[in-house]
Amino acid sequence: MTDPIRRLILELARLPGIGERSAARLAYYIIRVSQGPKSQHLAQDLSEALREAANAVRLCAQCQNLATDEHCGICADLRRDQSLLCVVESVADLRAIESSAAYRGLYHVLHGAIAPLNGVGPDDLKIKELLARLERTGVAEVILATSADVEGDATALYVAKLLRPFELRLTRLASGIPLGGELEFVDQGTLGRALAERREF
Amino acid sequence: MTDPIRRLILELARLPGIGERSAARLAYYIIRVSQGPKSQHLAQDLSEALREAANAVRLCAQCQNLATDEHCGICADLRRDQSLLCVVESVADLRAIESSAAYRGLYHVLHGAIAPLNGVGPDDLKIKELLARLERTGVAEVILATSADVEGDATALYVAKLLRPFELRLTRLASGIPLGGELEFVDQGTLGRALAERREF
Repeated sequence: MTDPIRRLILELARLPGIGERSAARLAYYIIRVSQGPKSQHLAQDLSEALREAANAVRLCAQCQNLATDEHCGICADLRRDQSLLCVVESVADLRAIESSAAYRGLYHVLHGAIAPLNGVGPDDLKIKELLARLERTGVAEVILATSADVEGDATALYVAKLLRPFELRLTRLASGIPLGGELEFVDQGTLGRALAERREF
Repeated sequence: MTDPIRRLILELARLPGIGERSAARLAYYIIRVSQGPKSQHLAQDLSEALREAANAVRLCAQCQNLATDEHCGICADLRRDQSLLCVVESVADLRAIESSAAYRGLYHVLHGAIAPLNGVGPDDLKIKELLARLERTGVAEVILATSADVEGDATALYVAKLLRPFELRLTRLASGIPLGGELEFVDQGTLGRALAERREF
């Protein structure tokens, strides 16, 4: 196999969820559609987008969200509720909450969850940045919106312990039956949690 | 969402089998690991590999395999059997046959299969190049190694018809039970074919 092709396959295989076989298929596809009369310039366009992203995108100095300036669009938007802080594991989680249009406060992105088995400890997350931020600017409430799995719960517990000295309200997202969820197909753990946390009707 | 991130997501979503949601996850991952103290330069490395592949890789002038010179490594290797030509749909198929180490002839890559429902007709494949090649250099046998599905069979039939005027042996890969395949789990079509094409023991 010629070298630039091999190299492209190996680089693509570094992406999460893409093994060497899928990487080879992607590489062949990219090279094929980037050539010939009906050239789609996919390799060139993707290369340029990656270069630009690597150069222009950084982490927001305040909330660690992706940003092209010192602060991300959310932190720069002063109409948002500055007293409310939502702690999430990832930028994808932040985007999910934003798209619900149900939240108007600020965020803090941890960039991961505590997972000792995968070698991710508290020091690998943006927890120091969260503490420094809370010492600088007081907020009234911190919502621990980490995932409802073992890692997310462990992370929420860890962060909650560190935040105890601060005078603020600490909350966690509600657990229960998803909207549109049929009871028959909801897993036992979720059902148990929904029963335990049942509310007045 | 800031523009370079949006752009990267859209470019990644052009890859086959990657929807916009997976593309977003990949983009966030790429940007995250390409930053910070333990920077892995993934965005930069991948960008560079794509650029190099787009610039350096072209199709072999003879067999349409990927190449960095005018001819690919296989066509340039004069120890290979020049009288045997294996027609495949894709570079991935060529690589699969090569890794079997059971073939020492040359190839011709069609870059697709006839699939009218997907808008792929004979003119979209490298069939003209195959005919021109056979007129230029005679071969003794052409193995039609297209896939054993509807599109592959249609393509083999179509090419076979065009090759009839040439004086050469036309063959097709054997169909049957895969090695290690348990009869119980082999599909009906394959079983039927294996029975019809049974051989002397």
